[in-house]
Amino acid sequence: MQAKVAVIMGSKSDWPTMQAAAEIMDKLQVSYVVDVVSAHRTPDKLMQFGEQAVDRGFEVVIAGAGGAAHLPGMVAAKTRLPVLGVPVQSKALSGMDSLLSIVQMPKGIAVGTLAIGTAGAFNAGLLACQILANNDPALAARLEAFRKEQTDAVLEQADPREEA
Amino acid sequence: MQAKVAVIMGSKSDWPTMQAAAEIMDKLQVSYVVDVVSAHRTPDKLMQFGEQAVDRGFEVVIAGAGGAAHLPGMVAAKTRLPVLGVPVQSKALSGMDSLLSIVQMPKGIAVGTLAIGTAGAFNAGLLACQILANNDPALAARLEAFRKEQTDAVLEQADPREEA
Amino acid sequence: MQAKVAVIMGSKSDWPTMQAAAEIMDKLQVSYVVDVVSAHRTPDKLMQFGEQAVDRGFEVVIAGAGGAAHLPGMVAAKTRLPVLGVPVQSKALSGMDSLLSIVQMPKGIAVGTLAIGTAGAFNAGLLACQILANNDPALAARLEAFRKEQTDAVLEQADPREEA
Amino acid sequence: MQAKVAVIMGSKSDWPTMQAAAEIMDKLQVSYVVDVVSAHRTPDKLMQFGEQAVDRGFEVVIAGAGGAAHLPGMVAAKTRLPVLGVPVQSKALSGMDSLLSIVQMPKGIAVGTLAIGTAGAFNAGLLACQILANNDPALAARLEAFRKEQTDAVLEQADPREEA
Amino acid sequence: MQAKVAVIMGSKSDWPTMQAAAEIMDKLQVSYVVDVVSAHRTPDKLMQFGEQAVDRGFEVVIAGAGGAAHLPGMVAAKTRLPVLGVPVQSKALSGMDSLLSIVQMPKGIAVGTLAIGTAGAFNAGLLACQILANNDPALAARLEAFRKEQTDAVLEQADPREEA
Amino acid sequence: MQAKVAVIMGSKSDWPTMQAAAEIMDKLQVSYVVDVVSAHRTPDKLMQFGEQAVDRGFEVVIAGAGGAAHLPGMVAAKTRLPVLGVPVQSKALSGMDSLLSIVQMPKGIAVGTLAIGTAGAFNAGLLACQILANNDPALAARLEAFRKEQTDAVLEQADPREEA
Amino acid sequence: MQAKVAVIMGSKSDWPTMQAAAEIMDKLQVSYVVDVVSAHRTPDKLMQFGEQAVDRGFEVVIAGAGGAAHLPGMVAAKTRLPVLGVPVQSKALSGMDSLLSIVQMPKGIAVGTLAIGTAGAFNAGLLACQILANNDPALAARLEAFRKEQTDAVLEQADPREEA
Amino acid sequence: MQAKVAVIMGSKSDWPTMQAAAEIMDKLQVSYVVDVVSAHRTPDKLMQFGEQAVDRGFEVVIAGAGGAAHLPGMVAAKTRLPVLGVPVQSKALSGMDSLLSIVQMPKGIAVGTLAIGTAGAFNAGLLACQILANNDPALAARLEAFRKEQTDAVLEQADPREEA
Repeated sequence: MQAKVAVIMGSKSDWPTMQAAAEIMDKLQVSYVVDVVSAHRTPDKLMQFGEQAVDRGFEVVIAGAGGAAHLPGMVAAKTRLPVLGVPVQSKALSGMDSLLSIVQMPKGIAVGTLAIGTAGAFNAGLLACQILANNDPALAARLEAFRKEQTDAVLEQADPREEA
Repeated sequence: MQAKVAVIMGSKSDWPTMQAAAEIMDKLQVSYVVDVVSAHRTPDKLMQFGEQAVDRGFEVVIAGAGGAAHLPGMVAAKTRLPVLGVPVQSKALSGMDSLLSIVQMPKGIAVGTLAIGTAGAFNAGLLACQILANNDPALAARLEAFRKEQTDAVLEQADPREEA
Repeated sequence: MQAKVAVIMGSKSDWPTMQAAAEIMDKLQVSYVVDVVSAHRTPDKLMQFGEQAVDRGFEVVIAGAGGAAHLPGMVAAKTRLPVLGVPVQSKALSGMDSLLSIVQMPKGIAVGTLAIGTAGAFNAGLLACQILANNDPALAARLEAFRKEQTDAVLEQADPREEA
Repeated sequence: MQAKVAVIMGSKSDWPTMQAAAEIMDKLQVSYVVDVVSAHRTPDKLMQFGEQAVDRGFEVVIAGAGGAAHLPGMVAAKTRLPVLGVPVQSKALSGMDSLLSIVQMPKGIAVGTLAIGTAGAFNAGLLACQILANNDPALAARLEAFRKEQTDAVLEQADPREEA
Repeated sequence: MQAKVAVIMGSKSDWPTMQAAAEIMDKLQVSYVVDVVSAHRTPDKLMQFGEQAVDRGFEVVIAGAGGAAHLPGMVAAKTRLPVLGVPVQSKALSGMDSLLSIVQMPKGIAVGTLAIGTAGAFNAGLLACQILANNDPALAARLEAFRKEQTDAVLEQADPREEA
Repeated sequence: MQAKVAVIMGSKSDWPTMQAAAEIMDKLQVSYVVDVVSAHRTPDKLMQFGEQAVDRGFEVVIAGAGGAAHLPGMVAAKTRLPVLGVPVQSKALSGMDSLLSIVQMPKGIAVGTLAIGTAGAFNAGLLACQILANNDPALAARLEAFRKEQTDAVLEQADPREEA
Repeated sequence: MQAKVAVIMGSKSDWPTMQAAAEIMDKLQVSYVVDVVSAHRTPDKLMQFGEQAVDRGFEVVIAGAGGAAHLPGMVAAKTRLPVLGVPVQSKALSGMDSLLSIVQMPKGIAVGTLAIGTAGAFNAGLLACQILANNDPALAARLEAFRKEQTDAVLEQADPREEA
Repeated sequence: MQAKVAVIMGSKSDWPTMQAAAEIMDKLQVSYVVDVVSAHRTPDKLMQFGEQAVDRGFEVVIAGAGGAAHLPGMVAAKTRLPVLGVPVQSKALSGMDSLLSIVQMPKGIAVGTLAIGTAGAFNAGLLACQILANNDPALAARLEAFRKEQTDAVLEQADPREEA
């Protein structure tokens, strides 16, 4: 099956964060590819990735990076596909640098930015599914089911005093 | 024509920021509606908006808010549509509060967040178009043309020493 | 006995923080209920909770949440009861995101915000007791006794060089 | 009529901020007194104020201060009444110093903190009314009416494109 | 011997930080007393401490506190003696709250603030000695000797590659 | 009369801030000298200033600087006199850079740091007077009078509603 | 004459900042070119610029950008020449976003970062001259003369009380 | 062989960070010396180091320091050589204090600043090599080879799902 989403990240060390995006897409049966593309160490691969993204049939790109996180913004500069950015938690500044480097894009090139770390990666995968669901009723149904399940899981939680 | 995008904001005072989203959608001929929905002052309207958003035919929701900016996240809690959040620049903290309130969503409910202020609003409109373009070749073509035009405008800039 | 205070939190994982609110209310013999209400995953329950809070006889609501912490503000949007917010310490940003999301409410909907983490949860419970004590002389007496005990505990501390 | 609320501030220069608290209490017909009490320049007055607050019949204290804002916390140290703190926007750090100085109180002495600046002052007055309304059905009715009016004002807003 | 310096702190839990002040004063043979004085839990003791500080013969007060750290500023409000403040590292905000609460004093009441944590406590003790040395030639000589020793210790460090 | 205090600053552009230190010393009749000493542009003058400060009879050095504010710490490295640092408000970062550059000194070399901007400069002058007053009963009396006058000025303030 | 330095910036609107780099290079007689290269809007030109920079004879690249400032880091990814980055002051976050986006580069691709704004741009030009002076004794002499002149200008400053 | 680069740091405790600068210079066969020079504890050594740096044949100075990190800026004040600054990660503020103290230099004295911590130290060494390579074709070739190797290492990374 043609993958609809590309998940790229600046380094293999970002995978423990980014796999949360894969987790939700697996659950919602959305196909994706995963690749390591470093804006700083493999800029030519980055440019090529951006140029070919439409032709490869992707509809969403998820890009995760930390520190001076240039990957999401540079991919967005090279493709008209929607790009979702995940700020990976950095060592010294806890991802505040990653967040600002990704979200503060100038007028004209957009990156839809998620939360710092694993929750953000999960939500990037989820948001990709939400985008695709607009034109995929079966996916929309699975998405609604996931949301209901998530709600039910909270509703069923017992009094926290008993279990926490 | 059925509007594909809903642009909502917490207060009419957010319009000078949010109109940049309208500007780019006008240019790219994407139809949208605009409404004031306050998470805190009109929570029932917010809930109703979220519940009806799919049925009203929207495919993307753009939500702008400032300070303790709860509007984007609460709409996202009520609809499976992709929600894009715009942090409006706040008075005391320059939008850092707006940004963190919008972007730091927990695992399970996603908001694709753009930059603080007008650039972020413009890019929210642009990202909505990018999402829609996946299934609208004519829009994709207009989007590519806009991107080329934007690139050309920079390429044609004269030496800044002569004009700045 | 009719509970006067409702303690709600976005997730069971917030209970290790929020139990400090219960601890002081237990000590001061103020009745309360505890529930998990997620603004993002159970928005309908949140709305219902807010709508019924007055009729259920509560006089104060304590709400704890972390990250893009929308729970306190959204409850406040749905009830005229005083709402006290506790910013739960978040992983990447240590609760600064939680704090700003809770405290920076717009004009018209108020949340009385306490410190980040356990101290804030304890003080939320304490402040609820202070509010109730205005109309409960016995509680006021217990509160005064607690305050005196707390003062005495500091006064009786030996020279820190001997024990710390 | 016996004033139920005391509004104190560290300097007359805080009044342009703090008058928003008076504004909403005037509207909701809650009686209050206003005084200048400086934690640093009139510490004895501060201590005396705290000691006498219960006997003077106050039920809530609203304290506004900027910078190293010690007034709210020190009043709270001297009275069992609920204390609401308003961080006044400071010159260099825009009120972030005021906010942290007020909200980060240690376990055992609580200050319910509102937003930085005028919105926070307004909400402090509003929260005081919410506290008092628990035992004042007429005030509760006025409060509900104010909230409805506020909601209606948003609902009636025209499309922002026409007027903003 | 009459103690020249008083070292006070808000809680015995601050002693692991504050003992660094004692360490350097021991080394430089400056006499001091140590006490726990909580601005929030023992405000009367704080006021009394401030009022009596001159008469007790102190020439410098060192005050350490964390979070909404009001102790240094409130002591300074009650005595004309120079007050040195030490921001104790706090849990959530790493002492940034402590620092701003201590250093951002308003015009008219001063606190000489040192670095966050143990280095700041050591330097508070050292600065107290520097103040006293102005009128104590023997102390001035010991201080110069300490400074020379400190310089020599750095000068004698071998190439870090061999030992670090 | 031999000046007891030296007020130095990195640039003449710091004088509008630093003159507040002079103002309070004039009022309290403490003699001082004023000089421009730039850590970065006149490092040799800085070193010489530090080396001669004791012999010139100074008892306190007040140093103001902005941005990467190295002047206070470098003077402290060259003299055993107490050094008080004033963070001048910087353009981009509002003095947060100045504050951290001055206050976060390592163990062994101390700078007593005051608030950002004019209030900090005033308080540096005041703290210098407090240090000198330990051995100057007449100055101590003037200082007490100033403090009383300052307190009285607040106590005499009318209701802010009438005048603010 | 072959230009040794290239000054590039993301937008003509950065020129009022970046011209300070040109100013000092003019003064020190270092030849340079100026161009607008946008990482996001002209990524291909950026790549080409980086690839050709060595062959065009440049020895230093100065790159200025604001917000999610990717220009300096991406040029550094494409050339072995030393790249100096200037964080342009941004509207909402005063250049803190620009600074972190430029300075927090990952291991393996370096950007020597200067201060936010005009001072940083001037210093980027100056640092480029310092780099070139290593192999240009005449430039080294001009640089030393500039530094002496700068020092003398501070030394000759009159008492700030007379002129500020 | 005459060392071209001097690596200095404020304390031996900075070596675990700074050795990353040595690591890359070893790899690229650039000679360097390492020394401990403390701005605050050995200011005379610092001044002497700066004065002699040109005559000792250095072409680049790398200086690492933490907290109120004055070493890079003060060396830059004493030599016309290019100075690269490395902000060492500090305990309380994670190196944000170090970064601002190093990068926010005033107009006229420049420090090229790298990232906080080990990555910054590595990049300081790398940038020194880049500077030297302008006049050393063999080094330029080694540098290009290192860059290629670094790129290849990323390109060869397998799918992160298999190994991370």
